Amino acid sequence: MSKAIPEPVTKLIEAFARLPGVGPKTASRLTYYLLRAPDDVSLSLADALRDMKANTRYCSVCYNITVDDPCPICADALRDQRMIAVVEEPLDVLAIERTGAYKGMYHVLHGAISPVNGIGPDDLRIRELVKRVDQGVAKEIIIATNPGLEGDATAMYIQRELMGKGVKMSRLARGLPVGSDIEYADSVTLTRALMGRNEV
Amino acid sequence: MSKAIPEPVTKLIEAFARLPGVGPKTASRLTYYLLRAPDDVSLSLADALRDMKANTRYCSVCYNITVDDPCPICADALRDQRMIAVVEEPLDVLAIERTGAYKGMYHVLHGAISPVNGIGPDDLRIRELVKRVDQGVAKEIIIATNPGLEGDATAMYIQRELMGKGVKMSRLARGLPVGSDIEYADSVTLTRALMGRNEV
Repeated sequence: MSKAIPEPVTKLIEAFARLPGVGPKTASRLTYYLLRAPDDVSLSLADALRDMKANTRYCSVCYNITVDDPCPICADALRDQRMIAVVEEPLDVLAIERTGAYKGMYHVLHGAISPVNGIGPDDLRIRELVKRVDQGVAKEIIIATNPGLEGDATAMYIQRELMGKGVKMSRLARGLPVGSDIEYADSVTLTRALMGRNEV
Repeated sequence: MSKAIPEPVTKLIEAFARLPGVGPKTASRLTYYLLRAPDDVSLSLADALRDMKANTRYCSVCYNITVDDPCPICADALRDQRMIAVVEEPLDVLAIERTGAYKGMYHVLHGAISPVNGIGPDDLRIRELVKRVDQGVAKEIIIATNPGLEGDATAMYIQRELMGKGVKMSRLARGLPVGSDIEYADSVTLTRALMGRNEV
């Protein structure tokens, strides 16, 4: 870049631009915002970055992100140990927790099988799930991977791995999102909604 | 937030969400990306943030962001000291430098007059510009504020402040952007393009 940009500024632009979804334009905009903002805004971000890397780890039971091991959910004796919801990402745990409709345990895979991205079953926490089912008290596995190609492939792989281990397996229902319009539903979703129709 | 999110993660989400244009969803996405990314990605961002705050200052001449004072542009004896382009933001300096068509000096206001946002002339580096004109060798002031309401108000204020000081004042030309379609030009721009038509 031109000498009109000092190196510390260039460095920060580059560091921002390495984040997903942040292009060079956004990276400059953020950087020049921080140049003018109170020091505290940059420094609290810098501290939070260091702090998160230093103080979080994976829960040794469910592989969610946590400070304490096991994580608060795994350590909660009031939750139903017999159910495990298998999700792709920590954010999926949050989404399910927000519903308030689930009181079981979780297992975070940290991704989905994706041959195009070079992600195979061994890159995910599937082996750990199988071990957990072998050793644990789980009676039902809810495979809550995303309803798409990669999530489906992952679900099928897990289903095969856990077959014959005496656990019930289920997947999240597919159909029309609540509050949506049939008129605007894509035909794959609508087909699933028809196939999965419930008697009333 | 729920206890499913450890505090260091919440803190980082909040720090990201304080940035302009970063909503809570993007902030979570960035945070969970960094949780999985190599440590180096977070730490280089943290370092760049601290480093930028520690090692940059405003140039005491033009108020651009710089490591050395005066900045490389102000210190460049080969540049034309008689012209000063007055811009709102450091990024505007970059944009003009990129053209390669300008070899004069700059003055960065750090904003524009905006009564709705509570920004008056005293919040900008206008006094410093007047002093610079009084003491300096400037012969022409190119007022390169943005072509909008706030930029226009700022330009008019500066024009009034510098009136009678024996400097030529100009503003950037307005008209159709190069490569654009007349068909799609907004009528304000098209009006300016008509008013500013050049004989050929």
